[in-house]
Amino acid sequence: MTKKRAICILSGGMDSTLSTYIAKNENYDIIPVHFNYGQRTEKRELKAFRDICNELKLENIYEIDIPFFTQIGASALTDDTIDIPVDGIEPGVPITYVPFRNGIFLSIATAIAEKEKASALFMGVVEEDSSGYPDCTDDFISKMSKSINAGTKEETKLEIITPLVKLSKSQIVTKATTLNVKLELTWSCYKESDIACGVCDSCRLRLNGFEKAGIKDNIPYKV
Amino acid sequence: MTKKRAICILSGGMDSTLSTYIAKNENYDIIPVHFNYGQRTEKRELKAFRDICNELKLENIYEIDIPFFTQIGASALTDDTIDIPVDGIEPGVPITYVPFRNGIFLSIATAIAEKEKASALFMGVVEEDSSGYPDCTDDFISKMSKSINAGTKEETKLEIITPLVKLSKSQIVTKATTLNVKLELTWSCYKESDIACGVCDSCRLRLNGFEKAGIKDNIPYKV
Repeated sequence: MTKKRAICILSGGMDSTLSTYIAKNENYDIIPVHFNYGQRTEKRELKAFRDICNELKLENIYEIDIPFFTQIGASALTDDTIDIPVDGIEPGVPITYVPFRNGIFLSIATAIAEKEKASALFMGVVEEDSSGYPDCTDDFISKMSKSINAGTKEETKLEIITPLVKLSKSQIVTKATTLNVKLELTWSCYKESDIACGVCDSCRLRLNGFEKAGIKDNIPYKV
Repeated sequence: MTKKRAICILSGGMDSTLSTYIAKNENYDIIPVHFNYGQRTEKRELKAFRDICNELKLENIYEIDIPFFTQIGASALTDDTIDIPVDGIEPGVPITYVPFRNGIFLSIATAIAEKEKASALFMGVVEEDSSGYPDCTDDFISKMSKSINAGTKEETKLEIITPLVKLSKSQIVTKATTLNVKLELTWSCYKESDIACGVCDSCRLRLNGFEKAGIKDNIPYKV
């Protein structure tokens, strides 16, 4: 019997990495998709992606260059003139929000899924314990799933699977440890590419998750 | 009073051009968005886009390069090894279908709309008298509209307007003529960039529209 095929959106952070391991554990044939979109830590995230692909022995991989996010800007991740906030997580949508990024990522991944005849698309979005991005919610994903199945060929039936959407960061760290995910290969920092800053929202969420899970994070931190 | 602002997806074909003129007639401040996605007639379509922007005196324009469609392929428009069909329109989804192209275009246009604080997004999709692409239906657009409004910031309220979706090609030609759209500036041919082939599906639909409307098409044709 042919294995079911899944597209896994894999940034190289903790969440998308765990999501990909979960797909692997569910016995899917995995096609990972990574986006280089001009974000500050683009090269470091690409290294994390490749390290994880090597670790999981994935071969049919897509590295997709997206030049237009820096042209659109309007986010601290893609516009170098806007500072990354380091003073702690605040309510509301932060300036690191990249306009409709996950809508764009899901749409491109859908095109790849349609070409590759995949039946599932895994994405590691987290709604609860996150930065408050509007394109990371269960409601958005559920609506996109309907759009995707309406806007593709009759024979394309794609299930959008977000195994982490209702988990906290500490649950993510615990589950990753249970599945022997090599979290030291992943990269989360928004600002730095060698030693993580420890103070951007993404580092804070990650460190808080490890702390609450009672597990040590083995990547280097400045702070 | 500030004018309402609209993003107009403008390929440079008849449909997107009429859609943009309709937005202009409804007194929107227009921001046109064009995609260079490695299609065969990329340069010719870009010229049509620029000619129409000049004609309408549009200044805040976006020309977006998308390198990944040729990487994904799976369409005669983006893969030179697949021939463009020239023997007439057949039932089903043709090989010129580019996987989830309109989902991707709408998502990128949404990011631009969110940055530019636009309240409307015009797209010239045609459902009835078209090539049978699944991402050109009213049902798909309506579902994407819900996705877009769920996945963007609270203050982003975007109406997706598809004024042509239920029109026939002859109605489009007639309406364009009524609005003094310079149809001779537009380009529809899938294959050629100097003299239109006259036999690809896109040329056939265009020519049939002009014929039924009883209006002469003033672009050059080989056949």
